[in-house]
Amino acid sequence: MSGNTFGKLFSFTTFGESHGPSLGIVLDGVPAGLEFSLTDLQKELDRRAPGRIEGTTSRIEPDHAEILSGIFNNKTLGTPIAVIVKNLNQRSEDYESFKDEFRPGHADRTTLLKYGIRDHRGGGRSSGRETLSRVIAGYFAGLIIPQIKVFAFINQLGPYKAFNKNPKEFSLNLDPFSFPFGEKKEEVIGFLKDLKQKGESVGGKISIIIENCPPGLGEPVFDKLKSDFAKGFLSIGSCVSFSYGLGEELADSFGTEVSENFSNFGGMEGGISSGERIFMECAFKPPSTVGDKAKAGRHDPCILPRVIPVVESMAKVVLADHFLRQRAYANKNSI
Amino acid sequence: MSGNTFGKLFSFTTFGESHGPSLGIVLDGVPAGLEFSLTDLQKELDRRAPGRIEGTTSRIEPDHAEILSGIFNNKTLGTPIAVIVKNLNQRSEDYESFKDEFRPGHADRTTLLKYGIRDHRGGGRSSGRETLSRVIAGYFAGLIIPQIKVFAFINQLGPYKAFNKNPKEFSLNLDPFSFPFGEKKEEVIGFLKDLKQKGESVGGKISIIIENCPPGLGEPVFDKLKSDFAKGFLSIGSCVSFSYGLGEELADSFGTEVSENFSNFGGMEGGISSGERIFMECAFKPPSTVGDKAKAGRHDPCILPRVIPVVESMAKVVLADHFLRQRAYANKNSI
Amino acid sequence: MSGNTFGKLFSFTTFGESHGPSLGIVLDGVPAGLEFSLTDLQKELDRRAPGRIEGTTSRIEPDHAEILSGIFNNKTLGTPIAVIVKNLNQRSEDYESFKDEFRPGHADRTTLLKYGIRDHRGGGRSSGRETLSRVIAGYFAGLIIPQIKVFAFINQLGPYKAFNKNPKEFSLNLDPFSFPFGEKKEEVIGFLKDLKQKGESVGGKISIIIENCPPGLGEPVFDKLKSDFAKGFLSIGSCVSFSYGLGEELADSFGTEVSENFSNFGGMEGGISSGERIFMECAFKPPSTVGDKAKAGRHDPCILPRVIPVVESMAKVVLADHFLRQRAYANKNSI
Amino acid sequence: MSGNTFGKLFSFTTFGESHGPSLGIVLDGVPAGLEFSLTDLQKELDRRAPGRIEGTTSRIEPDHAEILSGIFNNKTLGTPIAVIVKNLNQRSEDYESFKDEFRPGHADRTTLLKYGIRDHRGGGRSSGRETLSRVIAGYFAGLIIPQIKVFAFINQLGPYKAFNKNPKEFSLNLDPFSFPFGEKKEEVIGFLKDLKQKGESVGGKISIIIENCPPGLGEPVFDKLKSDFAKGFLSIGSCVSFSYGLGEELADSFGTEVSENFSNFGGMEGGISSGERIFMECAFKPPSTVGDKAKAGRHDPCILPRVIPVVESMAKVVLADHFLRQRAYANKNSI
Repeated sequence: MSGNTFGKLFSFTTFGESHGPSLGIVLDGVPAGLEFSLTDLQKELDRRAPGRIEGTTSRIEPDHAEILSGIFNNKTLGTPIAVIVKNLNQRSEDYESFKDEFRPGHADRTTLLKYGIRDHRGGGRSSGRETLSRVIAGYFAGLIIPQIKVFAFINQLGPYKAFNKNPKEFSLNLDPFSFPFGEKKEEVIGFLKDLKQKGESVGGKISIIIENCPPGLGEPVFDKLKSDFAKGFLSIGSCVSFSYGLGEELADSFGTEVSENFSNFGGMEGGISSGERIFMECAFKPPSTVGDKAKAGRHDPCILPRVIPVVESMAKVVLADHFLRQRAYANKNSI
Repeated sequence: MSGNTFGKLFSFTTFGESHGPSLGIVLDGVPAGLEFSLTDLQKELDRRAPGRIEGTTSRIEPDHAEILSGIFNNKTLGTPIAVIVKNLNQRSEDYESFKDEFRPGHADRTTLLKYGIRDHRGGGRSSGRETLSRVIAGYFAGLIIPQIKVFAFINQLGPYKAFNKNPKEFSLNLDPFSFPFGEKKEEVIGFLKDLKQKGESVGGKISIIIENCPPGLGEPVFDKLKSDFAKGFLSIGSCVSFSYGLGEELADSFGTEVSENFSNFGGMEGGISSGERIFMECAFKPPSTVGDKAKAGRHDPCILPRVIPVVESMAKVVLADHFLRQRAYANKNSI
Repeated sequence: MSGNTFGKLFSFTTFGESHGPSLGIVLDGVPAGLEFSLTDLQKELDRRAPGRIEGTTSRIEPDHAEILSGIFNNKTLGTPIAVIVKNLNQRSEDYESFKDEFRPGHADRTTLLKYGIRDHRGGGRSSGRETLSRVIAGYFAGLIIPQIKVFAFINQLGPYKAFNKNPKEFSLNLDPFSFPFGEKKEEVIGFLKDLKQKGESVGGKISIIIENCPPGLGEPVFDKLKSDFAKGFLSIGSCVSFSYGLGEELADSFGTEVSENFSNFGGMEGGISSGERIFMECAFKPPSTVGDKAKAGRHDPCILPRVIPVVESMAKVVLADHFLRQRAYANKNSI
Repeated sequence: MSGNTFGKLFSFTTFGESHGPSLGIVLDGVPAGLEFSLTDLQKELDRRAPGRIEGTTSRIEPDHAEILSGIFNNKTLGTPIAVIVKNLNQRSEDYESFKDEFRPGHADRTTLLKYGIRDHRGGGRSSGRETLSRVIAGYFAGLIIPQIKVFAFINQLGPYKAFNKNPKEFSLNLDPFSFPFGEKKEEVIGFLKDLKQKGESVGGKISIIIENCPPGLGEPVFDKLKSDFAKGFLSIGSCVSFSYGLGEELADSFGTEVSENFSNFGGMEGGISSGERIFMECAFKPPSTVGDKAKAGRHDPCILPRVIPVVESMAKVVLADHFLRQRAYANKNSI
């Protein structure tokens, strides 16, 4: 009830402060008998690790997943799956100076207002490290819906736009999209390094594309597929907007124009998947830590490269949940 | 579980197809002893009625609220409050032609894909009429948080922008904001009438401002206040985007710029209210019914004027829910 | 959250005070495409009506079910099903005298302690009339699990024991079990009439038998099938105990004795159905209204005859919910 | 949704198989700022440890609680509290022989029927070791409701009855009640040792008494306090019955008799606490492991001595949950 649980049938609860002993997750709602691979899970976690773009962050976290329950002989048991990642490398001292200081746009101030107490080391519960747990959830969601392809990519990083094309026209073999600046790649990396040195940070946008989603996912009223995606993405710390299909462009559009083409609605109509490509977009604000602290500490000048697997995971958990929900209500009198 | 319930502590379930006997709502989570006024409730419903802007829609629905339970001697009992609105004026025949036809962007096609059956009269469950129930919910939410002021207004209607000012600078005595085109009002109304005659429709944007929200509402991880607002607004049929604070502008921004001012983050930091003005924005697509059907039927060329009280209601229900949640966990050993 | 909702996938919310305008229910979680018959639903409600045993109660309530949503052309739509029963015959004046008086064992006193306000007419929300809604829920649950046979019967009415046999040995063609006193039937009816004339009331016990329940229903920890049955039955106003299998007899038993036979555990092991006959038992207290009020009013001297369909319904809703849950998690990668 | 979560506002999820790496719990709903003591928590766990009655079980489990999150400087943070207990002493080989064998009354057979796969070592998820997590939950529940006194005691162990008195008359200074056989204590211990040597097991009954519960806890319909207690206790593996107040005795009673005294209803009327002593009773079946396996292994001949803290914990978690719920809905316009 304190909002650390996401999903109804594919449901998981995350826990852990960034500088406490461990972060982790309990998944309650993974069917029995699915093949589990620790290597694959670890690969997903590694996609979220810092240092993917050299010179932009110095933090080194091994982030090893440890399975505590729910797996036996590399199969899911149908029982709750608990996974933890130990915090080995906390360096709380980096944050001592944050004790009485509030970063605008960060949870520092509001956490204290809410609870009257907070763990000031590294953001506590509101740290980006919490997203580790979401990547773990995404891995297990993927086991339930292996046929659905989800991938996210940066389409804007501060002043750089990655693509001019409309996401409904991308072809999926363009990947890896996760740092899709083509020949400008080195320039963008230079830009990021420069930001790091200056203690500056920058925002951007991420596109999410989903292929092969079966029709019929999503519920017609509050639990529309688009509402649950919106909630899932906005629950990521620095996400500040969500849109799907033509998005804000639709505000300027006439009905006759947009009605020509089902695909203008991003693969969801009436909040229910149509079976066509789903595409969505989220904007992210620049990280709150700037100035000298950002130079000295292990802070990212731009979170987009590392947020990609988190965004993909949130998409997958929403899909897996709605997949199980739709299956529950399929009209047949047998299990 | 089929997604017709919204909220955790202030929780409500809506029901009803647009052309069935009734639409309605059951609210489970309204405290006992609050003063109820049927007149005030009816006023809120009337704000959603068609014909607010003359000549733009011909549908006439009285939409009278009937209380079935939970109120005694004009006070809430603490028991579930059921309210229905009878469908008096359905004119199903208007929709006979929709039986085998799917409007792009509407739920027609996906409903059939999902259930294998649908009530084709007027959109069934996915009709805009379902939002009646949300306005009722908003009224009761308002009884719980009378001190919080919520108001929404059109800031763009197709090609017309209502304001140049940033919503963080509006003063609240500018109301009524709900059709805020100032001296251009007649021109915009003419534009809407013209659309109606042509069977055309148009989209737009709505801003939401919240004053006097106590700090500490919202939970730090999945049930962030911003995530629940995003879910609430995106659950409105034609809403296609959500942003808060500087929104998409933050994608182009540098950290040092935006960190100067707490208010760039729209009154929510780390997903928790800070006590400052909350401001958000949603885009809406043009209605799906266009062409001859739109001329003949009782369809709106633009839903913005009527969606205002719905948007306000969704904001209020999110706030009332988080208000009760915060109260539950307040740290004191008494009830 | 105020506890007027039962079930997770087959989920329903009830509303209504005994002397308000209507009682009713919203079911959210009935799959689409099931055949609906108002006649069959009404038959179930009639089984709960007073006057089944002549001379024991004078109340006459037609209790006509009205469908407000979720049904179209006699099929379920997959959308929420709202059903109401109007209170036509409330005679509030019968209860005026209860305004300042608390019946021991009844909710009168505790409702006031809880809410600081109550609807004193006829018990308000805690009236037995609320069970109407549960019978409606049971009818719809039955549509989901038509293959499972549930039936309840009186096995003790005050001093009268209906059977000497162990419920694991009953054959199902002994029905109608609902008033199973065989040649003693007239004597028991005379006993009840006599109680009514004296303003006296009496308790008793009900057995529940379930045949053809598929194995695998129930979850291993908190949502054991037995826990959910216990909650469901104890949520009926005057139910004071629950047991399953050999029940309290097991407290006196040795492991080697009871382990001889799987059926000693009432068809549930580890909280999960085994596929064998499920049998359970509940005790009910005597109605709280006694003395002159009981003579004059429309009160039952014993609720057992009327509670039978309520008990059966609670069993069915638990089964339907767990049936859908099990189906959701069945291990296959398709809907 | 797979039923590993209990409670709504004071809510917790347990995980872990008896022979996997760890068992544990995540509590989501513990308010911030409560004083935490690892020593006190450990004491509660120790009450559940084997060997409390010498000679009746040879299993030795240290069961050390490790805090992973939610506590900082010995105060609760308001964030999820994760606690694990490592399985150090599993001796899986003891259970190899159970691989293809099903103990009647145990989850062995039904788990396989449900999931098509199981962890056969020691009962997997259905092992009594899972109750560790509940004792941890009970400790934290106690921090929320320190003023409420909960205690459970054996009132029957196979052929031995501990008390003749009615629980409504016990005085609370009779404790420690947990092995309350007075001068017969040695005889009962001898009886248990004898059972152990023979590979025999026995059932019994536990009484639960609650003092100083505030009035108004519990909801009038499905989430009655009695229904939630019933669910909580029946969710303990070997619990086979629940009753409150005079319990089954009420089946033989006349209304005029029992209505003389509010306390016949065990401190709950209409499902809501009255402020008076609450008393309840549960029967437990004899452990399923009998014969040579029971002699050789580390199995209890009677679980009652060890189940006492588990029963108390389930009572506390129900009370803490309803305490927070009642506080949320208290009628005042402030947090």
